[in-house]
Amino acid sequence: MGSLVEELVGAIGSGRVSTEEELLARYAVDQAPIMDFQLPEAVVFAGSVKDVQAVVRLCAALNVAVVARGAGTGVSGGAHASRNCVVLSLERMNRILELNPDDETAVVEPGVINADLNEAAAAHGLMYAPDPASFRSSTIGGNVATNAGGLRCAKYGVTRDSVLALDVVLADGSLIHTGHQTFKGVAGYDLTGLFVGSEGTLGIVVGATVRLKYLPRDVHTIAAFYPDFRQAAAGVLAVGRARVQPAIMELLDGGTLAQLDDLHGSDLSSRGRSLLLIQTDGFGAAAEADVVRSVLAAGGATVSTESTAEAEQLVELRRNSRGVEVDDEYRVGEDVAVPRSRLVDYVAALEDLAATHGVSLKVVAHAGDGNLHPTFWIDRQGSAVDADAMARLNLALDASIEAALEMGGTITGEHGIGQYKLRWLGLEQPEPVRELQRRIKELFDPAGILNPGKAI
Amino acid sequence: MGSLVEELVGAIGSGRVSTEEELLARYAVDQAPIMDFQLPEAVVFAGSVKDVQAVVRLCAALNVAVVARGAGTGVSGGAHASRNCVVLSLERMNRILELNPDDETAVVEPGVINADLNEAAAAHGLMYAPDPASFRSSTIGGNVATNAGGLRCAKYGVTRDSVLALDVVLADGSLIHTGHQTFKGVAGYDLTGLFVGSEGTLGIVVGATVRLKYLPRDVHTIAAFYPDFRQAAAGVLAVGRARVQPAIMELLDGGTLAQLDDLHGSDLSSRGRSLLLIQTDGFGAAAEADVVRSVLAAGGATVSTESTAEAEQLVELRRNSRGVEVDDEYRVGEDVAVPRSRLVDYVAALEDLAATHGVSLKVVAHAGDGNLHPTFWIDRQGSAVDADAMARLNLALDASIEAALEMGGTITGEHGIGQYKLRWLGLEQPEPVRELQRRIKELFDPAGILNPGKAI
Ligand SMILES: Cc1cc2nc3c(=O)[nH]c(=O)nc-3n(C[C@H](O)[C@H](O)[C@H](O)COP(=O)(O)OP(=O)(O)OC[C@H]3O[C@@H](n4cnc5c(N)ncnc54)[C@H](O)[C@@H]3O)c2cc1C
Ligand SMILES: Cc1cc2nc3c(=O)[nH]c(=O)nc-3n(C[C@H](O)[C@H](O)[C@H](O)COP(=O)(O)OP(=O)(O)OC[C@H]3O[C@@H](n4cnc5c(N)ncnc54)[C@H](O)[C@@H]3O)c2cc1C
Repeated sequence: MGSLVEELVGAIGSGRVSTEEELLARYAVDQAPIMDFQLPEAVVFAGSVKDVQAVVRLCAALNVAVVARGAGTGVSGGAHASRNCVVLSLERMNRILELNPDDETAVVEPGVINADLNEAAAAHGLMYAPDPASFRSSTIGGNVATNAGGLRCAKYGVTRDSVLALDVVLADGSLIHTGHQTFKGVAGYDLTGLFVGSEGTLGIVVGATVRLKYLPRDVHTIAAFYPDFRQAAAGVLAVGRARVQPAIMELLDGGTLAQLDDLHGSDLSSRGRSLLLIQTDGFGAAAEADVVRSVLAAGGATVSTESTAEAEQLVELRRNSRGVEVDDEYRVGEDVAVPRSRLVDYVAALEDLAATHGVSLKVVAHAGDGNLHPTFWIDRQGSAVDADAMARLNLALDASIEAALEMGGTITGEHGIGQYKLRWLGLEQPEPVRELQRRIKELFDPAGILNPGKAI
Repeated sequence: MGSLVEELVGAIGSGRVSTEEELLARYAVDQAPIMDFQLPEAVVFAGSVKDVQAVVRLCAALNVAVVARGAGTGVSGGAHASRNCVVLSLERMNRILELNPDDETAVVEPGVINADLNEAAAAHGLMYAPDPASFRSSTIGGNVATNAGGLRCAKYGVTRDSVLALDVVLADGSLIHTGHQTFKGVAGYDLTGLFVGSEGTLGIVVGATVRLKYLPRDVHTIAAFYPDFRQAAAGVLAVGRARVQPAIMELLDGGTLAQLDDLHGSDLSSRGRSLLLIQTDGFGAAAEADVVRSVLAAGGATVSTESTAEAEQLVELRRNSRGVEVDDEYRVGEDVAVPRSRLVDYVAALEDLAATHGVSLKVVAHAGDGNLHPTFWIDRQGSAVDADAMARLNLALDASIEAALEMGGTITGEHGIGQYKLRWLGLEQPEPVRELQRRIKELFDPAGILNPGKAI
């Protein structure tokens, strides 16, 4: 056999294989902290299922690792290159193959951007419900591989709940179809669910049949400002006790409001130390919004009474509040989830941890799901940045993970383990459960070529 | 070692082990057709997780098959005894261990009856959404093991969508905990999903953490009678096109109406040849019901305008319309699902098949999900029952399965493969997919003692 790159070019054509230095570097990492930078041997841009099969077969024959990649918006290092690997980009496989309005399903290639699918669906009064804040850039394949959550998952469920069937290329290059084209189906084991969230370690997703939901007829958005963060967290529980199910329930703390003000020239901080953003939708949206408003006001919030236009703008800001990280900060951030009843306790614990370790805190949360993204940070420009800044940040971070686990939570609500969170996985899952997963991995990928060192 | 039964008694006590003939016979089968009747060696009634572990360990040591059993309401033979097996009943493990209204979760033992959990949840304004028509008798463990659907699954999802975490006793008697207590969690592979729907072949479910949903504030029920079955099926699509998501959308054909009339002295048949029952719920229920009514009327239905009381009674009748099978019939029935757009075609195909094979037809369908339960039958009392009645029924049945598959459907929407549907599984799933499942089974249960010959 020739060199790996020659073989790749021979298999799928030179236009689909790159070894260009700058491109290799760009495709070597996703948005997560870099722990062990590796340059891939090549990046291949699959144009078809056959391309994917050819690449995987070749890598299997040469015992070369394959790291699948969608848009590279992952924040856990799941798409970080590993040693001597080929990065297999699915981004050019971006066709919506079917959109079936009466079936309320779509069949897509893995590289379709979440927002593009939603736009196509909207033309039929439909939507693809899972909407990570990265929906304008992340791919359905990446969403499936991470079991992505999003803003409206409180009501509509996570990616898993919208995936009916998958086409998957296995580690030997063979292609299988899992699941069913129908809403329901229970023939055999749930292989579809096993691939969802497996972060490219069990197979390469080359096609997905997804269920679409109805675009809501009516949407009401409520902005509730609170004098402190804990009261805002309590607001989430109060809405739950009123037995109203909002589509969106996002919580932003004072640190986040200040940052948004800095970036957008808004004056959110002057209105409160925390913001709870709630969106109700559907035929009952107005009535639900009324209940939400009165419940929140009773809990000490200043509730928007004006048109919902401003509140909607705030939701747009929120959708962009991750990814606006400024580079002149030391920062570490996470993705824990806790049982809803512990939200207030957990928010209090975060504030205590920030104080104890002398670091700043900002938090955004998909609060309806109990899923929080706390960031601990220190301003680099400030005069008072000491040498051990990173150490203190990591102490706060580790303690925040432990606090979540103590409250019955998880170390990752939606971003996945990737590479970055492997160090905490043993705190959540005991050895027998981890061993079972290793054996499943071995069953699907005995040579260990699919995204080694990730997810489990 | 002593005999199996002695060992069982030694391990968990004589009060928990029965070899009483009549009881063995009763626990030898579920509600499915009997294909290969086997009397179990013993029935054990586990009272605790430790009991289950002890029984499984013992059976593993003696290489005896273990058939888990909830309420035995399964209709696929999943709980049928196999040769020389122990039937492991979970029905006495029926405590609701936790009900957390703020977390909106419950932790239950496997033998809790679906309706009992719902009653307990209702006291807090909550519900456990998956509601198989057997909800008054079937167990959560059985619902989990079959990934049961139900009436309100059109809006609220199937069992899988409500299960957050499981406690499972594996084939070696060890106990693992999978999943998370939070709504969302993506650490590692989805083992929880793998156990859901695995029909007791991968492990024994000894505990479940489930998510609860909000009891709807308002419910509207609409009964729409149609002159024929195909038009009623078209009504399902029309509601979808209006982008209204009912909680319940059940379709009953003329054969079913006639049977209900016989049983309950009602006069449904005189009002139409088919009935579409729709329930909207939540804050928008009234507005949604208005849209539904006008859409259905435009499609040729006679829509109930009276109070919804009568329509609600019809929903109750529907909940009981499976299980009222009369014993003086030859009959075969199934549980296919088709993509929604094919509902009308499929209903037409069923009518044609009944005519071709000279048999009667009755159909109930969870139509919102495209999930149909057609029954082909011949009256035994009738004079015209020929010798080959059963053969003709089976021809119609096989053809109905093939028609569903041709339309992109599945052989089982919610009842599971069990033992009865194994013969069709190869029509739906090609060999490589089946082989993958066999290897997963082997990984979890190398000796093959857990419910052998079922599900895959
Ligand atoms: C601004 C911003 C906001 C975000 N908001 C959210 C949010 O609200 N909710 C949320 O869940 N996440 C969020 N994320 C994280 C990220 O967008 C999601 O994890 C997303 O699903 C990744 O999609 P991607 O196409 O970028 O995949 P990538 O980052 O390229 O890959 C992610 C993982 O999936 C694997 N993978 C990718 N494609 C395939 C495939 N076809 N087959 C097999 N494996 C594959 C990769 O190997 C990797 O392990 C956010 C990220 C950013 C930067
Ligand atoms: C009148 C009637 C109406 C029905 N309506 C519906 C409906 O609307 N939707 C629907 O989906 N089904 C329906 N069914 C089928 C049946 O009720 C469901 O499959 C139900 O989930 C079975 O629960 P069970 O407790 O009776 O389980 P069983 O019948 O005892 O067992 C079912 C399967 O699960 C396994 N099992 C049971 N408990 C456990 C456990 N703890 N751990 C591991 N494996 C276990 C058994 O081995 C078997 O394979 C109906 C049945 C009847 C008779």
